[in-house]
Amino acid sequence: MSTAVDRNAPIGVFDSGLGGLTVAHAIMQQLPGESIVYFGDTARVPYGPKSPDTVRRYSHEIAGFLLEQGVKAIVVACNTATAHALPMLEAELPVPVIGVVGPGARAAVKGTRNGHIGVIGTEGTIKSGAYVRAIHAESPNAKVTALACPLFVPLVEEGWTNHDATWVIAEEYLAPLLRDDVDTLVLGCTHYPLLKSIIGEIVGRDVRLIDSAEETAADTRRMLSDNDILGTNEQGDYRFVASDDPAQFLELGQRFFGDALEHVEIRTFG
Amino acid sequence: MSTAVDRNAPIGVFDSGLGGLTVAHAIMQQLPGESIVYFGDTARVPYGPKSPDTVRRYSHEIAGFLLEQGVKAIVVACNTATAHALPMLEAELPVPVIGVVGPGARAAVKGTRNGHIGVIGTEGTIKSGAYVRAIHAESPNAKVTALACPLFVPLVEEGWTNHDATWVIAEEYLAPLLRDDVDTLVLGCTHYPLLKSIIGEIVGRDVRLIDSAEETAADTRRMLSDNDILGTNEQGDYRFVASDDPAQFLELGQRFFGDALEHVEIRTFG
Repeated sequence: MSTAVDRNAPIGVFDSGLGGLTVAHAIMQQLPGESIVYFGDTARVPYGPKSPDTVRRYSHEIAGFLLEQGVKAIVVACNTATAHALPMLEAELPVPVIGVVGPGARAAVKGTRNGHIGVIGTEGTIKSGAYVRAIHAESPNAKVTALACPLFVPLVEEGWTNHDATWVIAEEYLAPLLRDDVDTLVLGCTHYPLLKSIIGEIVGRDVRLIDSAEETAADTRRMLSDNDILGTNEQGDYRFVASDDPAQFLELGQRFFGDALEHVEIRTFG
Repeated sequence: MSTAVDRNAPIGVFDSGLGGLTVAHAIMQQLPGESIVYFGDTARVPYGPKSPDTVRRYSHEIAGFLLEQGVKAIVVACNTATAHALPMLEAELPVPVIGVVGPGARAAVKGTRNGHIGVIGTEGTIKSGAYVRAIHAESPNAKVTALACPLFVPLVEEGWTNHDATWVIAEEYLAPLLRDDVDTLVLGCTHYPLLKSIIGEIVGRDVRLIDSAEETAADTRRMLSDNDILGTNEQGDYRFVASDDPAQFLELGQRFFGDALEHVEIRTFG
């Protein structure tokens, strides 16, 4: 890092939509002195079913916007964007960048006792193989059962976090985890922590659930510290930016974030 | 219309994704001499939950692309885009344009015996009030029960057109139609015809289901004829264009369209 970097500049955090607010929230809790600019690409959400090239193009545009805002580091708070775009962003950005896959994978490897790890995520995240690679990088002999759960995001966005239909769908999606006897399950999509109680009940209390938000916030501290850019503010400032209607972002965002989310700016692409 | 218009130029048909292929297919069946350029905005799908301004911006960009392809008329084969953007497109385009809301509304008014009409669609379509306005324009005393069914699109895209979860969800969404005793139901989203058997079973055989694809194709013929631009080809040509990965479009598109869909071009925005 050049010495010109302002250690009290904000951290840029982005997601395809609102799910990444769980990561932003964990960073606020663990690093109260850091300022944050959060970007949610609500005009183009979801990323999960879209192609790697398209997700990389969107990630590149958003990272450019965050750099214009003067961020000192970027956290990719979206599993699909991390899976497809993190290597590209690491190569092209002049600031440090981390994603959510590595922290979740490391926590799972630490947490497992029997070496059988489950990962659930969007179609894009699972097809990319990013979690399997990240887990095997830490523990080459770990057995990984990776499952796409495409309806979980729409169910959360509908607010059906404890609905009969959600139970039926979750039981079907998660059945292979029970057969494979996993003892640790990575919630590999930032929406999924909102389904924690259903998922936990179905896979059983013996299975440890890994929510990458907390892990990613811990890694964010490490990244800032390694680069000697930990903030020294008493209290950070927060900005929220979305590509679609701010009103909708506010309404849904408060489900993740509570009243701390008071105002949303808009920034469109294309 | 200027006399310079080529009556054998293609018709432009667009949708947020693949659902509009049902409309393109109906046009192919009813107007085999017409060529079609179909555009599916798969990189930004779905439109249903997005704001009116964003849907208008996307529709404007796509209409511009279709004009560049030399289309003689445009069919908005997406209920959400029709609901938010049709008046704007009618005002700004130099070619005739129709949407799917008017044809479906007219068919419902013709079909109802008791004057109670149901409409189901995305959140954007229902919130816009476009169907209620279109129905009341034809029949001011009609009683309309309009319901958003946000999970139907993801369920169709998951291929769960006859899954237990789809039954649970459909029963909940459609319950108000039974209470209100509708005798005619507009499937106000181009994905919904794929759920026809579940929807039909739940609302009962006495309720007539209106699939706007057929009605829109009939209106397309009328529009072309009124403007004296009906094609005179023996057999039309078909082009399919998507904003995201053509491979995915092909795979899902064949669910709607069968083997007639062999090749997909790509065109991105932004």
